[in-house]
Amino acid sequence: MLIDPLIVQKAENLIPELLTVPVQPKAVVEIAADEEAFQGWRVDRAEQQDWKGRVLGKGDSFVLDFEDHMVGYLSLAVKSVGSPPDAPLKLKLTFGEMPCEIAEPFESYKGWLSSSWLQEETMFVDVLPAEIKLPRRYTFRFLKVEVLDTSVKYKVSFEDIACSTVTSGDVCMVKPLPSEVSEELALMDRIAIKTLQDCMQTVFEDGPKRDRRLWIGDLRLQAQANYLTFNNHDLVGRCLYLFAGMRLPDGAVGACVFEKPHAHVDDTRLYDYALFFVACLYDYYEASKDRETLQELWPIAMQQIEIGVQRLNEKGIVADDETWWSFIDWHSGLNKQAPTQGVLIYCLRQGLELARIVGDAAQVQYIEGQIEWTVSGAIAQLWDEQQGFFISGSDEQISWASQVWMVLAEVLPVDESAALLDRLFESPPAIGMTTPYMYHHLIEALFSVGKRDKAVEQMKAYWGEMIKDGADTFWELYNPEDKKLSPYGSNLINSYCHAWSCTPTYFIRKYLI
Amino acid sequence: MLIDPLIVQKAENLIPELLTVPVQPKAVVEIAADEEAFQGWRVDRAEQQDWKGRVLGKGDSFVLDFEDHMVGYLSLAVKSVGSPPDAPLKLKLTFGEMPCEIAEPFESYKGWLSSSWLQEETMFVDVLPAEIKLPRRYTFRFLKVEVLDTSVKYKVSFEDIACSTVTSGDVCMVKPLPSEVSEELALMDRIAIKTLQDCMQTVFEDGPKRDRRLWIGDLRLQAQANYLTFNNHDLVGRCLYLFAGMRLPDGAVGACVFEKPHAHVDDTRLYDYALFFVACLYDYYEASKDRETLQELWPIAMQQIEIGVQRLNEKGIVADDETWWSFIDWHSGLNKQAPTQGVLIYCLRQGLELARIVGDAAQVQYIEGQIEWTVSGAIAQLWDEQQGFFISGSDEQISWASQVWMVLAEVLPVDESAALLDRLFESPPAIGMTTPYMYHHLIEALFSVGKRDKAVEQMKAYWGEMIKDGADTFWELYNPEDKKLSPYGSNLINSYCHAWSCTPTYFIRKYLI
Repeated sequence: MLIDPLIVQKAENLIPELLTVPVQPKAVVEIAADEEAFQGWRVDRAEQQDWKGRVLGKGDSFVLDFEDHMVGYLSLAVKSVGSPPDAPLKLKLTFGEMPCEIAEPFESYKGWLSSSWLQEETMFVDVLPAEIKLPRRYTFRFLKVEVLDTSVKYKVSFEDIACSTVTSGDVCMVKPLPSEVSEELALMDRIAIKTLQDCMQTVFEDGPKRDRRLWIGDLRLQAQANYLTFNNHDLVGRCLYLFAGMRLPDGAVGACVFEKPHAHVDDTRLYDYALFFVACLYDYYEASKDRETLQELWPIAMQQIEIGVQRLNEKGIVADDETWWSFIDWHSGLNKQAPTQGVLIYCLRQGLELARIVGDAAQVQYIEGQIEWTVSGAIAQLWDEQQGFFISGSDEQISWASQVWMVLAEVLPVDESAALLDRLFESPPAIGMTTPYMYHHLIEALFSVGKRDKAVEQMKAYWGEMIKDGADTFWELYNPEDKKLSPYGSNLINSYCHAWSCTPTYFIRKYLI
Repeated sequence: MLIDPLIVQKAENLIPELLTVPVQPKAVVEIAADEEAFQGWRVDRAEQQDWKGRVLGKGDSFVLDFEDHMVGYLSLAVKSVGSPPDAPLKLKLTFGEMPCEIAEPFESYKGWLSSSWLQEETMFVDVLPAEIKLPRRYTFRFLKVEVLDTSVKYKVSFEDIACSTVTSGDVCMVKPLPSEVSEELALMDRIAIKTLQDCMQTVFEDGPKRDRRLWIGDLRLQAQANYLTFNNHDLVGRCLYLFAGMRLPDGAVGACVFEKPHAHVDDTRLYDYALFFVACLYDYYEASKDRETLQELWPIAMQQIEIGVQRLNEKGIVADDETWWSFIDWHSGLNKQAPTQGVLIYCLRQGLELARIVGDAAQVQYIEGQIEWTVSGAIAQLWDEQQGFFISGSDEQISWASQVWMVLAEVLPVDESAALLDRLFESPPAIGMTTPYMYHHLIEALFSVGKRDKAVEQMKAYWGEMIKDGADTFWELYNPEDKKLSPYGSNLINSYCHAWSCTPTYFIRKYLI
């Protein structure tokens, strides 16, 4: 890997102090099977609400509902009841963002992501009474407390259970919405902000439950939402320095970085994600006007452009590939060529702006040439005049993603882009969208061509539907048509507070007030 | 409870510093089912001995053999192999004093002691590489290390695994045996000393795996072995002060005490165990000649005598009872009346010696009277001249325990006691002995009447047989006739290093050199 220790040190100097708030559980609940409920599980208020001081023996349990999404550290106080404890207490804790995590046994998990993400602890407490502070961070709304064993001579009761929440997003920085915003959108804004807040830690994490890393695709959307809410420039700066300071051997920005035990970059390479370094830097400068950081990081952004255009074939089109070379969306059938061409052009345009700001005429000229070449290549090779859609790959696939990214790349004049988006809804292609990340880009495309009402309608149909299904924070994955969808083979492992789903607040605050 | 804070404080001032030694695992082994082997499990050396650096993925495991009994704290260093770890490591550790604990799944445990004693940990390691120091103390020889999950992107390997052993028994204090002692007895002595050493912590524990408490019945035997080996008078003093400082409401000494979170006495009351406070104090003074402690604790010992004789009926016999009122031995069919009468007389005789030493004529006279009454009561009511055995309870039960304790109580002249013991072996009663604790008293009785050869023969038949069955330390429970015996419903929960089994070193060093 290509490591620049000075840049990494700048990133480390920007590690934020986390804000902590202690939160108590609000209710005791029961999770009941219910085919009508989201994912088949209904949350009922339990008849017996007194968990403090309740006496529990072997096999007894209760489920606490914190009534909001928590990211933090759990503490609990437990004491013995009866004779002096003559054996350790064996205790099991199960944490769930969603009811399914409490109701479905983790042993049943057969998905392909590591089962180590499922949040549970089996603990032995040798000395009672005990005040236990669990060292790991958990992400949850529901907590199941289960006494696996005591002894015939004693039982236990719990005195205090609390979560010390952590975030680097200070809600005091968030401006209240004007009162004319509808209740529906205000609620969507609040949940989006909570989603962003819970992902804001010592970096912008993609999901605080899983996988807790800084991915550049998520960062871009989080940063955009952040500029209109928490406005924490330092945290974006830290993330930019992390990506800039640790790159893949040829200089490309990696797809994600880890913070511990020391900052290091993952070996995952994604073509679109590397280019987003340009877009992230552009957005950062627009929001912060921090010229020093721009000057320092621009050469690395410029390098991403140079690496990106190396993939262009002789017709000015990015070469396609059978591997997982570009992200775009979690969709196994999606051909990535045309949407990735869109991403390249989008980032070239933002790079051009930055080159003009730093005042490098040669770079300006170079990027202008690349834009002309890739746009004309896209029109000549990927635009199907007869069908009125962009096609992708050797099978000439028509997908939502291709059209959306070509609109964002401004390949067509704005009125033609608007007509393209209309056609998309009139004759929807079979290859749809699967993530809030891709939906974000659809909404952004709609706003970009002035289709404000359609954008709001789509926001309500997607994020609004999540709210109806009980979202405290917005989810990594959602398909209103297939509510048990998981690309990982199990709902249990989905992240239910996910960075790339936080952008309704960005749309509301940028376009709707 | 009756708490004397000043006496408890004296006990706490005597908390010893523990000696620690780091120990590395010696071999990788496999546990194989084998009907010929003890408890059905054979230990084989594994073909692949290199565990350091071996690459383990999901489901991989190895079993380490430390080749001796460990009491201490485990540390392990683990690192990732492959891509940067993109999910936590889920790890399971299983600790076993014996092969059965590694080979038989703990889920199968159905015994009546708490399953929380079974030593295992399921851990999540969020950051790799990691140096993990487990906070709990474990007691084991075998350690199974099992990788439950990593992710598709990485595996792990272990670098260092070690146990930091702890004890308050300093082996430097133990005198080597004279060279004329046979190899067989020298080995028995060594294992007995190791058993005692591993039970010597901040108190004399009954078993370092289970249940780790200070029981006065175990203390008495441990202290007797200690005076001839580690010679740690302070640790005995600490234990005497703990029992003296925290008593049951009527002043009786409790059966056991806990050290944490602060010293406290259990609510278990056992008639024989309370009386053993007198015997423990007698032995302590004989070994230490510490007159100050004797003066301070004698009134409490005298109180145990006074409480003990309150149970005598009008014929000078301790009242029998259907409850678990006296310990004597783990034997569900054993009637406790006659053996408990023996314990009372035994302790009265030691109390008489102490009363003489402190020089209280009134107490001397009082105890002499009690001895006369209880001995004559025993002869008149419990001695069956025709059968030549002591009988016990309304069913006139004849047991080994009754004869042994009557011999130790010197109820009969020494030649008649010797003849009684001969009859015991010639016509063994159906109600036998089940614990090393009871076997100890048989051996002590044999030595007390000069039957040295028979005593050695019995030691070899019992502790010697344990050695043949693979004991690194002597066990809580052993029946050469029924090697899977456990009064708790499962072998898994038996303690395989148990205080009351440490006395071969006492016999060897007191009577055989």
